[in-house]
Amino acid sequence: MEIRILSHTPNPELIVALAARQSWSSKKVEDLKKELTPEKVSSFLRKLYKMHHLSPFEHANFTFLVEGISRVTSHQLVRHRIASYTQQSQRHVEVTEGKFVVPETIKNKSSTHSLYTKAVKSAVSIYKKLINEGVPLEDARYVLPSSVTTRIIFTMNARELLHFFKLRTCIAAQWEIRKVAEEMLKLVKEIAPNLFYYAGPPCVEGICPEKKFCELFKKYYKKKS
Amino acid sequence: MEIRILSHTPNPELIVALAARQSWSSKKVEDLKKELTPEKVSSFLRKLYKMHHLSPFEHANFTFLVEGISRVTSHQLVRHRIASYTQQSQRHVEVTEGKFVVPETIKNKSSTHSLYTKAVKSAVSIYKKLINEGVPLEDARYVLPSSVTTRIIFTMNARELLHFFKLRTCIAAQWEIRKVAEEMLKLVKEIAPNLFYYAGPPCVEGICPEKKFCELFKKYYKKKS
Amino acid sequence: MEIRILSHTPNPELIVALAARQSWSSKKVEDLKKELTPEKVSSFLRKLYKMHHLSPFEHANFTFLVEGISRVTSHQLVRHRIASYTQQSQRHVEVTEGKFVVPETIKNKSSTHSLYTKAVKSAVSIYKKLINEGVPLEDARYVLPSSVTTRIIFTMNARELLHFFKLRTCIAAQWEIRKVAEEMLKLVKEIAPNLFYYAGPPCVEGICPEKKFCELFKKYYKKKS
Amino acid sequence: MEIRILSHTPNPELIVALAARQSWSSKKVEDLKKELTPEKVSSFLRKLYKMHHLSPFEHANFTFLVEGISRVTSHQLVRHRIASYTQQSQRHVEVTEGKFVVPETIKNKSSTHSLYTKAVKSAVSIYKKLINEGVPLEDARYVLPSSVTTRIIFTMNARELLHFFKLRTCIAAQWEIRKVAEEMLKLVKEIAPNLFYYAGPPCVEGICPEKKFCELFKKYYKKKS
Repeated sequence: MEIRILSHTPNPELIVALAARQSWSSKKVEDLKKELTPEKVSSFLRKLYKMHHLSPFEHANFTFLVEGISRVTSHQLVRHRIASYTQQSQRHVEVTEGKFVVPETIKNKSSTHSLYTKAVKSAVSIYKKLINEGVPLEDARYVLPSSVTTRIIFTMNARELLHFFKLRTCIAAQWEIRKVAEEMLKLVKEIAPNLFYYAGPPCVEGICPEKKFCELFKKYYKKKS
Repeated sequence: MEIRILSHTPNPELIVALAARQSWSSKKVEDLKKELTPEKVSSFLRKLYKMHHLSPFEHANFTFLVEGISRVTSHQLVRHRIASYTQQSQRHVEVTEGKFVVPETIKNKSSTHSLYTKAVKSAVSIYKKLINEGVPLEDARYVLPSSVTTRIIFTMNARELLHFFKLRTCIAAQWEIRKVAEEMLKLVKEIAPNLFYYAGPPCVEGICPEKKFCELFKKYYKKKS
Repeated sequence: MEIRILSHTPNPELIVALAARQSWSSKKVEDLKKELTPEKVSSFLRKLYKMHHLSPFEHANFTFLVEGISRVTSHQLVRHRIASYTQQSQRHVEVTEGKFVVPETIKNKSSTHSLYTKAVKSAVSIYKKLINEGVPLEDARYVLPSSVTTRIIFTMNARELLHFFKLRTCIAAQWEIRKVAEEMLKLVKEIAPNLFYYAGPPCVEGICPEKKFCELFKKYYKKKS
Repeated sequence: MEIRILSHTPNPELIVALAARQSWSSKKVEDLKKELTPEKVSSFLRKLYKMHHLSPFEHANFTFLVEGISRVTSHQLVRHRIASYTQQSQRHVEVTEGKFVVPETIKNKSSTHSLYTKAVKSAVSIYKKLINEGVPLEDARYVLPSSVTTRIIFTMNARELLHFFKLRTCIAAQWEIRKVAEEMLKLVKEIAPNLFYYAGPPCVEGICPEKKFCELFKKYYKKKS
């Protein structure tokens, strides 16, 4: 899995703070901009978050390139509807290298690991045979396992990212999309630490909606960190 | 593949016509309702469509149950963001029957058909072995081919459906989602023939944006109908 | 202000429960439907809400007719983007009756009340004069006060409604849209009490993001109920 | 009216072209980036538009500051739901200067102009009196005419902008929002001429859905340009 930020709103924190500030002020936007020192931006953004005034966070956009994730994960990813996706097409691009994801629970045991690896490689080789027999790419792909990797470029704004992180960095999330989310969070925090100061699973704010799993999760989560 | 409409806005055509009518009228809504005979609704809806006044079409919602489609197709389906989806979870529901989709181009030739069938069945059997070895469902599923079927309930409004049909009943669409779209169109037309009077690929309106494939498509399309 | 539900998803609670149920089950949808007694639907929906599994709530749609609200309020209403709106057009429909909204803080004092009433009536009469002088409706309307009433039909799903109620039944919301929200909540609760069991401002769940106003709000809120 | 672009995706054309390119290619993203000379980006973006492959256009975002528009226009603007808005609040910011918009059809005749100006100024002065009498800002504002100006910051992606320009640069659009749209179009064209090469009313592409007004519009449109 490789994740990079291809592009983002320049000065995302200033833009968000400025948009929010001017909505409560009669001052000129240029004057408000001058007043917004980095310290003020920082404290103001955290205050906005705490008050759940999240709509200004939408002005900051981030474009990610994600490579080497399974289609299990891309299928979950694109369920987040407030975002823009451009995914590598299995209709038009042949899966040549046949890279695939191996879950830890399978990798951990040599018997399951070899069973799995053989199965995936066999499927990829049958995919190639089908193509050689004249089957179109878009049909041969039906034999490919969900573990075969894909590439996707997507753009999300900071408000949707905060929501995404809430769901997907949680221990209740499926492990691969959690890895994607954790890596994304690390990357956006480098660019905009104050926009994402409170980002993370709901328990970061002291609230866990999935209460019945709570003890298990807390324990596991601690063990992890 | 099995598609049914589970639920829909009652009197969807009247609601759409009424919403549109009242926006240009000072009359009472009840009086407008009385004036809206089936004939008037019918001609008014077609006129609205022709003038691209599509926002009132959003008041009519349709909830579909789709079973027996591959995850190739569900992955494409959920890319339509102005809709609501609840899909059967491969994290929590074991794939027991192992039903799968076979593309025509594979089915047509016994050599490719048997190659494909063996490959998919073998993958499903390894999936079961992995589970027996203690691998969690959510990880064993990585070995499953995209052809294994899924079930999904989704709700779309008539405006988004018109857009969906434009893209997905077109010959340029992938064949399985085209089958889904054609079946959906048949079902909604029974309920609301006037909302979907002009529904179909762009060429229905005499415009084909993918001009370079145009001759091919037109020919194929004629052969089909 | 007059609010009515024009239409809604039939059996909205059953549809939501069914959609959610089938995503975690390998059983047939018809069988799941049979199992879903009213008691089970009721407890299951509340559990879904508590676990923040809100996406199935989107399958239930409600279409409202709202009349007699000011454009102050319609401007706020249409800011909720996950919904469909058809509003009476001031470009095309003449404001003949000149009905308008009077805020309580103005009505309470005879001096402000008469000042306000005279001002609004004078504006409406100048609007009519401008039309008589040949000014188009769409331009004469620039003189109309925000208090002049409008009519709007809109469709929202239950998930967005829950979000709408969270923001707009809160004492921090502007009073007129709060009245709209409270009335809407009363209406949907009659139809789907379990979908909206926890609906209301955030303090219903014991959390108030706008902490600094907290004491004031709690007191006022109690006084109100 | 004053419109500025506060921020936008850096290299918006390259990002859109790159996202689209990689979805049909097995090449590395860095290599695709090297291949994408300005000439290739230019011709590729126009081709994408012509083929209606618009989803990659969503990766380019533009943040606008609009000042001095009436609330007639801001009410229409925020109806575009695929965008993010932060508007100056009339609940919290006092309308001190009382700037307002005057439509041409009113300005053109001294009798209507003076009638209108007097009415708006009188309303603003009563607004101030109400505040002096202790009426809260959020209630006094009910007396303000729709012509009083507002300020709004909003972010839209290039795909939604293309849709916005289609509707709002058309002669059928209300004149003030048309002015906003034309100014926005000029600004984005300076930054990304290829993303917006075909931007404009539907007749730019030779299609006018509002056929019944067509002759009138065409004539007027020609006179304008």
